[in-house]
Amino acid sequence: MADGRVVVIGAGPAGLEAARLAADLGARVTVVEKKQALGGMPISANYAALTHGFRSAEEAMGEMISAVVDHPNIELRTSSQVTAMSGSAPELSLTIANGDASEEVSAGAVIVATGFRHFDPGRETQQYGYYEFPDVITLADAEAMLKADNFVRPSNGEVPERVAFIQCVGSRDRQIGNEFCSKVCCGISSKQAIEIRQQVPDARVFIFYIDMRMYGYWENDIYWPAQEQYKVNYVKGIVTEILLKGDKLVVRGED
Amino acid sequence: MADGRVVVIGAGPAGLEAARLAADLGARVTVVEKKQALGGMPISANYAALTHGFRSAEEAMGEMISAVVDHPNIELRTSSQVTAMSGSAPELSLTIANGDASEEVSAGAVIVATGFRHFDPGRETQQYGYYEFPDVITLADAEAMLKADNFVRPSNGEVPERVAFIQCVGSRDRQIGNEFCSKVCCGISSKQAIEIRQQVPDARVFIFYIDMRMYGYWENDIYWPAQEQYKVNYVKGIVTEILLKGDKLVVRGED
Repeated sequence: MADGRVVVIGAGPAGLEAARLAADLGARVTVVEKKQALGGMPISANYAALTHGFRSAEEAMGEMISAVVDHPNIELRTSSQVTAMSGSAPELSLTIANGDASEEVSAGAVIVATGFRHFDPGRETQQYGYYEFPDVITLADAEAMLKADNFVRPSNGEVPERVAFIQCVGSRDRQIGNEFCSKVCCGISSKQAIEIRQQVPDARVFIFYIDMRMYGYWENDIYWPAQEQYKVNYVKGIVTEILLKGDKLVVRGED
Repeated sequence: MADGRVVVIGAGPAGLEAARLAADLGARVTVVEKKQALGGMPISANYAALTHGFRSAEEAMGEMISAVVDHPNIELRTSSQVTAMSGSAPELSLTIANGDASEEVSAGAVIVATGFRHFDPGRETQQYGYYEFPDVITLADAEAMLKADNFVRPSNGEVPERVAFIQCVGSRDRQIGNEFCSKVCCGISSKQAIEIRQQVPDARVFIFYIDMRMYGYWENDIYWPAQEQYKVNYVKGIVTEILLKGDKLVVRGED
Protein backbone atom coordinates (compact mmCIF):
# COMPACT_ATOMS: atom_id res chain seq x y z
CA MET A 1 0.00 0.00 0.00
CA ALA A 2 1.06 3.55 -0.68
CA ASP A 3 1.10 4.34 3.03
CA GLY A 4 1.87 1.41 5.29
CA ARG A 5 -0.47 2.72 7.95
CA VAL A 6 -3.58 0.77 8.93
CA VAL A 7 -6.35 2.52 10.82
CA VAL A 8 -8.44 0.29 13.08
CA ILE A 9 -11.76 1.75 14.21
CA GLY A 10 -12.81 0.28 17.53
CA ALA A 11 -10.75 -1.10 20.42
CA GLY A 12 -12.87 -4.05 21.45
CA PRO A 13 -11.70 -7.66 21.09
CA ALA A 14 -11.87 -7.60 17.27
CA GLY A 15 -10.14 -4.24 16.87
CA LEU A 16 -7.43 -4.98 19.41
CA GLU A 17 -6.61 -8.33 17.84
CA ALA A 18 -6.65 -6.89 14.30
CA ALA A 19 -4.35 -4.05 15.40
CA ARG A 20 -1.90 -6.41 17.08
CA LEU A 21 -1.78 -8.78 14.10
CA ALA A 22 -1.33 -6.01 11.53
CA ALA A 23 1.40 -4.42 13.68
CA ASP A 24 3.13 -7.79 14.12
CA LEU A 25 3.15 -8.10 10.33
CA GLY A 26 5.02 -4.79 10.12
CA ALA A 27 2.26 -2.27 9.50
CA ARG A 28 2.12 0.99 11.43
CA VAL A 29 -1.29 1.04 13.09
CA THR A 30 -3.54 3.74 14.51
CA VAL A 31 -6.39 2.54 16.72
CA VAL A 32 -9.34 4.92 17.06
CA GLU A 33 -11.70 4.29 19.99
CA LYS A 34 -14.64 6.53 20.81
CA LYS A 35 -14.62 5.65 24.50
CA GLN A 36 -11.92 6.65 26.90
CA ALA A 37 -11.29 3.04 27.92
CA LEU A 38 -10.06 0.20 25.75
CA GLY A 39 -11.55 -3.31 25.68
CA GLY A 40 -14.97 -2.74 24.15
CA MET A 41 -18.12 -4.44 25.33
CA PRO A 42 -16.50 -7.07 27.60
CA ILE A 43 -15.09 -4.21 29.70
CA SER A 44 -17.76 -1.51 29.32
CA ALA A 45 -20.64 -3.93 29.99
CA ASN A 46 -18.87 -5.77 32.82
CA TYR A 47 -18.72 -9.23 31.32
CA ALA A 48 -17.92 -11.98 33.82
CA ALA A 49 -16.30 -15.08 32.31
CA LEU A 50 -15.81 -15.53 28.58
CA THR A 51 -16.45 -18.64 26.54
CA HIS A 52 -14.58 -20.75 25.99
CA GLY A 53 -12.52 -21.70 29.01
CA PHE A 54 -14.43 -19.53 31.50
CA ARG A 55 -11.52 -17.06 31.68
CA SER A 56 -12.18 -13.77 33.45
CA ALA A 57 -13.17 -11.22 30.81
CA GLU A 58 -11.14 -8.55 32.61
CA GLU A 59 -8.02 -10.70 32.63
CA ALA A 60 -8.36 -11.86 29.02
CA MET A 61 -9.09 -8.36 27.72
CA GLY A 62 -6.28 -6.99 29.91
CA GLU A 63 -3.80 -9.14 28.00
CA MET A 64 -5.16 -7.96 24.65
CA ILE A 65 -5.04 -4.33 25.77
CA SER A 66 -1.45 -4.62 27.03
CA ALA A 67 -0.30 -6.17 23.77
CA VAL A 68 -1.62 -3.12 21.91
CA VAL A 69 -0.63 -0.41 24.40
CA ASP A 70 2.93 -1.72 24.57
CA HIS A 71 3.34 -2.29 20.83
CA PRO A 72 5.97 -0.02 19.23
CA ASN A 73 4.04 0.02 15.90
CA ILE A 74 0.69 1.05 17.38
CA GLU A 75 -0.61 4.53 18.19
CA LEU A 76 -3.80 4.97 20.19
CA ARG A 77 -6.47 7.63 19.81
CA THR A 78 -9.02 7.21 22.60
CA SER A 79 -12.09 9.42 23.13
CA SER A 80 -11.82 9.87 19.36
CA GLN A 81 -13.93 9.21 16.31
CA VAL A 82 -13.36 9.02 12.59
CA THR A 83 -15.55 11.82 11.25
CA ALA A 84 -14.61 11.76 7.56
CA MET A 85 -12.83 9.57 5.04
CA SER A 86 -11.91 10.24 1.41
CA GLY A 87 -9.95 8.58 -1.37
CA SER A 88 -9.85 4.86 -2.00
CA ALA A 89 -7.49 2.12 -0.89
CA PRO A 90 -4.51 2.17 -0.82
CA GLU A 91 -4.65 5.97 -0.63
CA LEU A 92 -7.10 6.94 2.05
CA SER A 93 -7.34 10.09 4.10
CA LEU A 94 -9.17 10.11 7.42
CA THR A 95 -10.19 12.82 9.82
CA ILE A 96 -9.93 11.78 13.47
CA ALA A 97 -11.71 14.08 15.90
CA ASN A 98 -11.04 14.29 19.62
CA GLY A 99 -13.45 16.79 21.12
CA ASP A 100 -12.78 20.06 19.33
CA ALA A 101 -9.38 19.00 18.03
CA SER A 102 -8.93 16.96 14.88
CA GLU A 103 -6.10 15.49 12.84
CA GLU A 104 -5.73 14.18 9.29
CA VAL A 105 -4.26 10.70 8.89
CA SER A 106 -3.42 8.94 5.64
CA ALA A 107 -3.76 5.18 5.51
CA GLY A 108 -3.46 2.29 3.12
CA ALA A 109 -6.25 0.32 4.75
CA VAL A 110 -9.01 0.76 7.32
CA ILE A 111 -10.36 -2.03 9.50
CA VAL A 112 -13.86 -1.37 10.81
CA ALA A 113 -14.42 -3.12 14.13
CA THR A 114 -17.14 -0.94 15.58
CA GLY A 115 -18.93 -3.69 17.46
CA PHE A 116 -22.56 -4.10 18.34
CA ARG A 117 -25.29 -3.01 20.71
CA HIS A 118 -27.11 -5.39 23.04
CA PHE A 119 -30.75 -5.96 22.16
CA ASP A 120 -33.19 -3.97 24.28
CA PRO A 121 -36.30 -6.11 24.91
CA GLY A 122 -38.10 -3.23 26.61
CA ARG A 123 -37.85 -1.03 23.57
CA GLU A 124 -38.42 -3.72 20.93
CA THR A 125 -40.89 -6.09 22.56
CA GLN A 126 -43.28 -5.35 25.39
CA GLN A 127 -44.03 -9.05 25.81
CA TYR A 128 -41.88 -9.81 28.81
CA GLY A 129 -42.21 -6.61 30.81
CA TYR A 130 -38.54 -5.66 30.87
CA TYR A 131 -39.38 -2.03 31.67
CA GLU A 132 -42.24 -3.06 33.94
CA PHE A 133 -40.77 -5.66 36.31
CA PRO A 134 -37.37 -5.07 37.93
CA ASP A 135 -36.75 -8.81 38.16
CA VAL A 136 -36.94 -9.24 34.38
CA ILE A 137 -33.34 -8.75 33.28
CA THR A 138 -31.21 -9.28 30.15
CA LEU A 139 -28.14 -11.43 29.68
CA ALA A 140 -26.08 -8.24 29.92
CA ASP A 141 -27.70 -7.32 33.25
CA ALA A 142 -27.07 -10.81 34.57
CA GLU A 143 -23.48 -10.76 33.35
CA ALA A 144 -22.71 -7.64 35.40
CA MET A 145 -24.23 -9.17 38.54
CA LEU A 146 -22.32 -12.41 38.02
CA LYS A 147 -19.10 -10.49 37.61
CA ALA A 148 -19.75 -8.75 40.95
CA ASP A 149 -20.54 -12.14 42.49
CA ASN A 150 -23.87 -10.64 43.54
CA PHE A 151 -26.59 -12.43 41.60
CA VAL A 152 -29.81 -11.23 43.26
CA ARG A 153 -33.36 -10.17 42.47
CA PRO A 154 -33.07 -6.45 41.70
CA SER A 155 -36.49 -5.84 43.30
CA ASN A 156 -35.44 -6.84 46.81
CA GLY A 157 -31.75 -7.77 46.79
CA GLU A 158 -32.49 -11.38 47.75
CA VAL A 159 -31.05 -14.38 45.97
CA PRO A 160 -33.59 -15.95 43.62
CA GLU A 161 -35.08 -19.39 44.24
CA ARG A 162 -35.73 -19.99 40.55
CA VAL A 163 -34.22 -18.45 37.47
CA ALA A 164 -35.71 -18.78 33.97
CA PHE A 165 -33.82 -17.93 30.79
CA ILE A 166 -35.89 -17.19 27.67
CA GLN A 167 -34.04 -17.82 24.40
CA CYS A 168 -34.54 -16.08 21.05
CA VAL A 169 -35.80 -12.79 22.51
CA GLY A 170 -35.07 -10.39 19.70
CA SER A 171 -33.81 -13.03 17.31
CA ARG A 172 -35.66 -15.48 15.04
CA ASP A 173 -38.54 -13.08 15.53
CA ARG A 174 -40.35 -11.95 12.41
CA GLN A 175 -42.60 -9.62 14.34
CA ILE A 176 -39.73 -7.23 14.96
CA GLY A 177 -37.88 -7.90 11.71
CA ASN A 178 -34.98 -9.86 13.20
CA GLU A 179 -35.40 -13.08 11.30
CA PHE A 180 -31.91 -14.44 11.89
CA CYS A 181 -30.45 -16.46 14.74
CA SER A 182 -28.01 -14.34 16.72
CA LYS A 183 -25.90 -17.42 17.27
CA VAL A 184 -24.33 -16.70 20.66
CA CYS A 185 -27.24 -16.49 23.13
CA CYS A 186 -27.60 -20.26 23.61
CA GLY A 187 -23.97 -20.44 24.61
CA ILE A 188 -23.99 -17.37 26.84
CA SER A 189 -27.22 -18.39 28.60
CA SER A 190 -25.85 -21.82 29.32
CA LYS A 191 -22.59 -20.33 30.58
CA GLN A 192 -24.54 -18.00 32.90
CA ALA A 193 -26.71 -20.90 34.04
CA ILE A 194 -23.55 -22.67 35.19
CA GLU A 195 -22.27 -19.52 36.92
CA ILE A 196 -25.59 -19.03 38.71
CA ARG A 197 -25.51 -22.60 39.95
CA GLN A 198 -21.95 -21.97 41.18
CA GLN A 199 -22.78 -18.67 42.92
CA VAL A 200 -26.31 -19.52 44.13
CA PRO A 201 -26.27 -23.31 44.51
CA ASP A 202 -29.82 -23.49 45.90
CA ALA A 203 -31.40 -21.77 42.90
CA ARG A 204 -33.14 -23.89 40.29
CA VAL A 205 -32.31 -22.78 36.76
CA PHE A 206 -34.47 -23.29 33.64
CA ILE A 207 -33.67 -22.49 30.03
CA PHE A 208 -36.68 -22.19 27.70
CA TYR A 209 -35.58 -22.66 24.11
CA ILE A 210 -36.73 -23.32 20.55
CA ASP A 211 -33.50 -25.08 19.51
CA MET A 212 -30.29 -25.09 21.52
CA ARG A 213 -27.79 -23.88 18.95
CA MET A 214 -24.48 -24.68 20.59
CA TYR A 215 -21.75 -26.21 18.58
CA GLY A 216 -18.04 -26.89 18.46
CA TYR A 217 -16.34 -26.40 21.78
CA TRP A 218 -19.57 -25.28 23.46
CA GLU A 219 -20.92 -28.82 23.30
CA ASN A 220 -18.37 -30.20 25.76
CA ASP A 221 -17.39 -27.03 27.59
CA ILE A 222 -20.87 -25.82 28.41
CA TYR A 223 -23.83 -27.80 27.08
CA TRP A 224 -23.17 -31.14 28.75
CA PRO A 225 -21.68 -29.79 32.00
CA ALA A 226 -24.70 -27.46 32.39
CA GLN A 227 -27.07 -30.41 32.22
CA GLU A 228 -25.08 -33.12 33.94
CA GLN A 229 -22.85 -31.40 36.45
CA TYR A 230 -24.94 -28.30 37.22
CA LYS A 231 -28.44 -29.76 36.75
CA VAL A 232 -29.72 -26.92 34.61
CA ASN A 233 -33.20 -27.73 33.25
CA TYR A 234 -33.59 -27.28 29.50
CA VAL A 235 -37.24 -26.93 28.50
CA LYS A 236 -38.31 -26.83 24.86
CA GLY A 237 -41.05 -24.25 24.58
CA ILE A 238 -41.81 -20.62 23.95
CA VAL A 239 -42.62 -18.32 26.84
CA THR A 240 -45.66 -16.27 25.94
CA GLU A 241 -45.86 -13.87 28.87
CA ILE A 242 -44.54 -12.93 32.26
CA LEU A 243 -46.95 -11.92 35.04
CA LEU A 244 -46.54 -10.65 38.56
CA LYS A 245 -48.14 -12.79 41.29
CA GLY A 246 -47.56 -11.42 44.79
CA ASP A 247 -43.89 -10.39 44.76
CA LYS A 248 -42.93 -13.16 42.35
CA LEU A 249 -42.90 -13.46 38.59
CA VAL A 250 -44.88 -16.19 36.84
CA VAL A 251 -43.63 -17.45 33.50
CA ARG A 252 -46.33 -18.69 31.14
CA GLY A 253 -45.45 -20.65 28.06
CA GLU A 254 -46.41 -23.22 25.52
CA ASP A 255 -44.67 -26.47 24.66
CA MET B 1 8.78 -14.26 3.01
CA ALA B 2 12.14 -15.45 1.74
CA ASP B 3 10.46 -17.17 -1.19
CA GLY B 4 7.23 -15.59 -2.37
CA ARG B 5 5.79 -18.98 -3.25
CA VAL B 6 2.76 -20.31 -1.41
CA VAL B 7 1.97 -24.02 -1.61
CA VAL B 8 -1.72 -24.91 -1.22
CA ILE B 9 -2.44 -28.56 -0.46
CA GLY B 10 -5.88 -29.54 -1.73
CA ALA B 11 -7.95 -28.20 -4.63
CA GLY B 12 -11.42 -28.26 -3.12
CA PRO B 13 -13.40 -25.06 -2.42
CA ALA B 14 -11.08 -23.92 0.40
CA GLY B 15 -7.85 -24.63 -1.46
CA LEU B 16 -9.03 -23.09 -4.72
CA GLU B 17 -10.21 -19.93 -3.01
CA ALA B 18 -7.04 -19.63 -0.91
CA ALA B 19 -4.89 -20.10 -4.03
CA ARG B 20 -6.80 -17.49 -5.99
CA LEU B 21 -6.65 -14.94 -3.18
CA ALA B 22 -2.94 -15.44 -2.51
CA ALA B 23 -2.21 -15.20 -6.25
CA ASP B 24 -4.32 -12.04 -6.56
CA LEU B 25 -2.24 -10.56 -3.74
CA GLY B 26 0.89 -11.19 -5.80
CA ALA B 27 2.19 -14.49 -4.46
CA ARG B 28 3.29 -17.25 -6.79
CA VAL B 29 1.18 -20.28 -5.88
CA THR B 30 1.53 -24.02 -6.39
CA VAL B 31 -1.64 -26.05 -5.82
CA VAL B 32 -1.11 -29.73 -5.02
CA GLU B 33 -4.12 -32.03 -5.47
CA LYS B 34 -3.97 -35.78 -4.95
CA LYS B 35 -6.85 -36.48 -7.34
CA GLN B 36 -6.69 -35.97 -11.07
CA ALA B 37 -9.71 -33.65 -11.01
CA LEU B 38 -10.04 -30.28 -9.30
CA GLY B 39 -13.01 -29.19 -7.22
CA GLY B 40 -12.80 -31.48 -4.20
CA MET B 41 -15.81 -33.07 -2.56
CA PRO B 42 -18.56 -31.05 -4.35
CA ILE B 43 -17.31 -32.52 -7.63
CA SER B 44 -16.03 -35.96 -6.60
CA ALA B 45 -19.13 -36.74 -4.50
CA ASN B 46 -21.61 -35.31 -7.03
CA TYR B 47 -23.12 -32.57 -4.95
CA ALA B 48 -26.35 -31.12 -6.32
CA ALA B 49 -27.10 -27.55 -5.23
CA LEU B 50 -24.97 -25.68 -2.71
CA THR B 51 -26.15 -23.52 0.16
CA HIS B 52 -26.72 -20.68 0.08
CA GLY B 53 -28.58 -19.68 -3.04
CA PHE B 54 -29.16 -23.22 -4.35
CA ARG B 55 -26.56 -22.72 -7.08
CA SER B 56 -25.50 -25.81 -9.03
CA ALA B 57 -22.38 -27.19 -7.35
CA GLU B 58 -20.88 -28.01 -10.74
CA GLU B 59 -21.40 -24.48 -11.99
CA ALA B 60 -20.15 -22.79 -8.82
CA MET B 61 -17.08 -25.02 -8.58
CA GLY B 62 -16.49 -24.59 -12.31
CA GLU B 63 -16.05 -20.86 -11.79
CA MET B 64 -13.60 -21.42 -8.92
CA ILE B 65 -11.64 -23.94 -10.98
CA SER B 66 -11.44 -21.64 -14.00
CA ALA B 67 -10.17 -18.77 -11.88
CA VAL B 68 -7.29 -20.95 -10.69
CA VAL B 69 -6.53 -22.75 -13.96
CA ASP B 70 -6.38 -19.47 -15.88
CA HIS B 71 -4.38 -17.55 -13.26
CA PRO B 72 -0.89 -16.54 -14.44
CA ASN B 73 0.51 -16.80 -10.89
CA ILE B 74 -0.75 -20.32 -10.20
CA GLU B 75 0.83 -23.67 -11.08
CA LEU B 76 -1.14 -26.88 -10.70
CA ARG B 77 0.14 -30.28 -9.62
CA THR B 78 -2.71 -32.80 -9.93
CA SER B 79 -2.45 -36.52 -9.12
CA SER B 80 0.25 -35.33 -6.74
CA GLN B 81 0.92 -35.40 -3.02
CA VAL B 82 3.25 -33.61 -0.63
CA THR B 83 5.34 -36.43 0.80
CA ALA B 84 7.86 -34.47 2.87
CA MET B 85 8.40 -31.00 4.28
CA SER B 86 11.39 -29.50 6.12
CA GLY B 87 12.55 -26.14 7.41
CA SER B 88 10.27 -23.58 9.00
CA ALA B 89 8.37 -20.58 7.64
CA PRO B 90 9.38 -18.51 5.70
CA GLU B 91 11.96 -21.03 4.47
CA LEU B 92 10.21 -24.29 3.73
CA SER B 93 11.16 -27.07 1.42
CA LEU B 94 8.56 -29.55 0.16
CA THR B 95 8.71 -32.75 -1.81
CA ILE B 96 5.83 -33.15 -4.26
CA ALA B 97 5.42 -36.66 -5.64
CA ASN B 98 3.53 -37.57 -8.80
CA GLY B 99 3.63 -41.35 -9.20
CA ASP B 100 7.31 -42.28 -9.36
CA ALA B 101 8.45 -38.75 -10.18
CA SER B 102 9.07 -36.10 -7.54
CA GLU B 103 10.16 -32.48 -7.34
CA GLU B 104 11.51 -30.22 -4.61
CA VAL B 105 9.70 -26.90 -4.12
CA SER B 106 10.70 -24.10 -1.76
CA ALA B 107 7.95 -21.98 -0.25
CA GLY B 108 7.40 -19.19 2.21
CA ALA B 109 4.07 -20.52 3.40
CA VAL B 110 1.92 -23.63 3.11
CA ILE B 111 -1.87 -23.63 3.27
CA VAL B 112 -3.34 -26.99 4.28
CA ALA B 113 -6.82 -27.44 2.79
CA THR B 114 -7.02 -31.21 2.75
CA GLY B 115 -10.73 -31.43 3.35
CA PHE B 116 -12.79 -34.08 5.09
CA ARG B 117 -14.36 -37.50 4.71
CA HIS B 118 -18.08 -38.13 4.92
CA PHE B 119 -19.17 -40.09 7.98
CA ASP B 120 -19.87 -43.76 7.33
CA PRO B 121 -22.83 -44.86 9.49
CA GLY B 122 -22.40 -48.47 8.45
CA ARG B 123 -18.90 -48.68 9.76
CA GLU B 124 -19.37 -46.54 12.88
CA THR B 125 -22.90 -47.37 14.02
CA GLN B 126 -24.90 -50.47 13.25
CA GLN B 127 -28.05 -48.84 14.61
CA TYR B 128 -29.72 -47.83 11.38
CA GLY B 129 -28.78 -50.75 9.09
CA TYR B 130 -26.92 -48.72 6.47
CA TYR B 131 -25.11 -51.83 5.24
CA GLU B 132 -28.21 -54.00 5.73
CA PHE B 133 -31.05 -52.12 3.98
CA PRO B 134 -30.49 -50.60 0.53
CA ASP B 135 -33.08 -47.92 1.22
CA VAL B 136 -31.11 -46.52 4.17
CA ILE B 137 -28.88 -43.91 2.56
CA THR B 138 -26.63 -41.04 3.65
CA LEU B 139 -26.84 -37.36 2.78
CA ALA B 140 -24.02 -37.94 0.29
CA ASP B 141 -25.96 -40.77 -1.39
CA ALA B 142 -29.06 -38.60 -1.58
CA GLU B 143 -27.07 -35.68 -2.95
CA ALA B 144 -25.84 -37.74 -5.90
CA MET B 145 -29.39 -38.93 -6.69
CA LEU B 146 -30.73 -35.38 -6.45
CA LYS B 147 -28.02 -34.15 -8.79
CA ALA B 148 -29.06 -36.80 -11.33
CA ASP B 149 -32.71 -35.78 -10.83
CA ASN B 150 -33.38 -39.42 -9.98
CA PHE B 151 -34.38 -39.59 -6.34
CA VAL B 152 -35.61 -43.18 -5.92
CA ARG B 153 -35.58 -46.11 -3.51
CA PRO B 154 -32.35 -47.93 -4.37
CA SER B 155 -34.03 -51.28 -3.58
CA ASN B 156 -36.56 -51.09 -6.41
CA GLY B 157 -35.98 -47.90 -8.37
CA GLU B 158 -39.40 -46.49 -7.41
CA VAL B 159 -39.95 -43.01 -6.05
CA PRO B 160 -40.46 -43.05 -2.28
CA GLU B 161 -43.81 -42.20 -0.69
CA ARG B 162 -42.18 -41.04 2.53
CA VAL B 163 -38.68 -39.90 3.30
CA ALA B 164 -37.24 -39.60 6.82
CA PHE B 165 -34.04 -37.73 7.64
CA ILE B 166 -32.30 -38.61 10.90
CA GLN B 167 -30.11 -35.82 12.30
CA CYS B 168 -26.97 -36.14 14.42
CA VAL B 169 -25.95 -39.57 13.07
CA GLY B 170 -22.24 -39.61 13.84
CA SER B 171 -22.23 -36.28 15.62
CA ARG B 172 -23.20 -35.32 19.18
CA ASP B 173 -22.75 -39.04 19.84
CA ARG B 174 -20.60 -39.99 22.80
CA GLN B 175 -20.89 -43.68 22.07
CA ILE B 176 -18.61 -43.32 19.07
CA GLY B 177 -16.47 -40.52 20.45
CA ASN B 178 -17.82 -37.72 18.23
CA GLU B 179 -19.07 -35.39 20.91
CA PHE B 180 -19.24 -32.28 18.76
CA CYS B 181 -21.97 -30.92 16.48
CA SER B 182 -20.86 -31.14 12.88
CA LYS B 183 -22.70 -27.92 12.18
CA VAL B 184 -23.77 -28.39 8.56
CA CYS B 185 -26.13 -31.40 8.55
CA CYS B 186 -29.23 -29.47 9.66
CA GLY B 187 -28.76 -27.12 6.76
CA ILE B 188 -27.96 -29.77 4.17
CA SER B 189 -30.84 -32.02 5.26
CA SER B 190 -33.28 -29.15 5.02
CA LYS B 191 -31.88 -28.18 1.62
CA GLN B 192 -32.32 -31.77 0.41
CA ALA B 193 -35.81 -31.93 1.88
CA ILE B 194 -36.72 -28.96 -0.30
CA GLU B 195 -35.12 -30.57 -3.37
CA ILE B 196 -36.98 -33.83 -2.75
CA ARG B 197 -40.25 -31.98 -2.51
CA GLN B 198 -39.39 -30.24 -5.79
CA GLN B 199 -38.39 -33.44 -7.61
CA VAL B 200 -40.90 -35.83 -6.00
CA PRO B 201 -43.84 -33.60 -5.06
CA ASP B 202 -45.99 -36.46 -3.78
CA ALA B 203 -43.44 -37.65 -1.22
CA ARG B 204 -43.93 -36.71 2.40
CA VAL B 205 -40.69 -35.63 4.06
CA PHE B 206 -39.85 -35.81 7.77
CA ILE B 207 -36.78 -34.54 9.59
CA PHE B 208 -36.13 -36.08 13.03
CA TYR B 209 -33.88 -33.82 15.04
CA ILE B 210 -32.51 -33.04 18.50
CA ASP B 211 -32.06 -29.31 17.83
CA MET B 212 -32.24 -27.68 14.40
CA ARG B 213 -28.94 -25.80 14.27
CA MET B 214 -29.45 -23.50 11.32
CA TYR B 215 -28.39 -19.92 11.56
CA GLY B 216 -27.56 -16.84 9.60
CA TYR B 217 -28.69 -17.04 6.00
CA TRP B 218 -30.02 -20.60 6.43
CA GLU B 219 -32.88 -19.29 8.56
CA ASN B 220 -34.54 -17.44 5.69
CA ASP B 221 -33.10 -19.32 2.72
CA ILE B 222 -33.91 -22.82 3.90
CA TYR B 223 -35.47 -23.25 7.33
CA TRP B 224 -38.65 -21.26 6.83
CA PRO B 225 -39.22 -22.13 3.15
CA ALA B 226 -38.79 -25.85 3.98
CA GLN B 227 -41.58 -25.63 6.54
CA GLU B 228 -43.91 -23.12 4.98
CA GLN B 229 -43.49 -23.44 1.24
CA TYR B 230 -42.46 -27.10 0.97
CA LYS B 231 -44.37 -28.53 3.95
CA VAL B 232 -41.45 -30.50 5.34
CA ASN B 233 -42.35 -32.02 8.72
CA TYR B 234 -39.84 -31.33 11.49
CA VAL B 235 -40.18 -33.82 14.36
CA LYS B 236 -38.23 -33.43 17.58
CA GLY B 237 -37.11 -36.88 18.62
CA ILE B 238 -34.37 -39.46 18.35
CA VAL B 239 -34.83 -42.42 16.04
CA THR B 240 -33.83 -45.56 17.90
CA GLU B 241 -33.97 -48.17 15.15
CA ILE B 242 -34.97 -48.94 11.59
CA LEU B 243 -36.76 -52.21 10.79
CA LEU B 244 -37.90 -53.89 7.59
CA LYS B 245 -41.62 -54.61 7.33
CA GLY B 246 -42.61 -56.18 4.03
CA ASP B 247 -40.65 -54.20 1.47
CA LYS B 248 -40.81 -50.99 3.50
CA LEU B 249 -38.70 -49.54 6.25
CA VAL B 250 -40.22 -48.68 9.61
CA VAL B 251 -38.64 -45.90 11.63
CA ARG B 252 -38.98 -46.26 15.40
CA GLY B 253 -38.21 -43.38 17.68
CA GLU B 254 -38.78 -41.62 20.93
CA ASP B 255 -40.00 -38.11 21.52
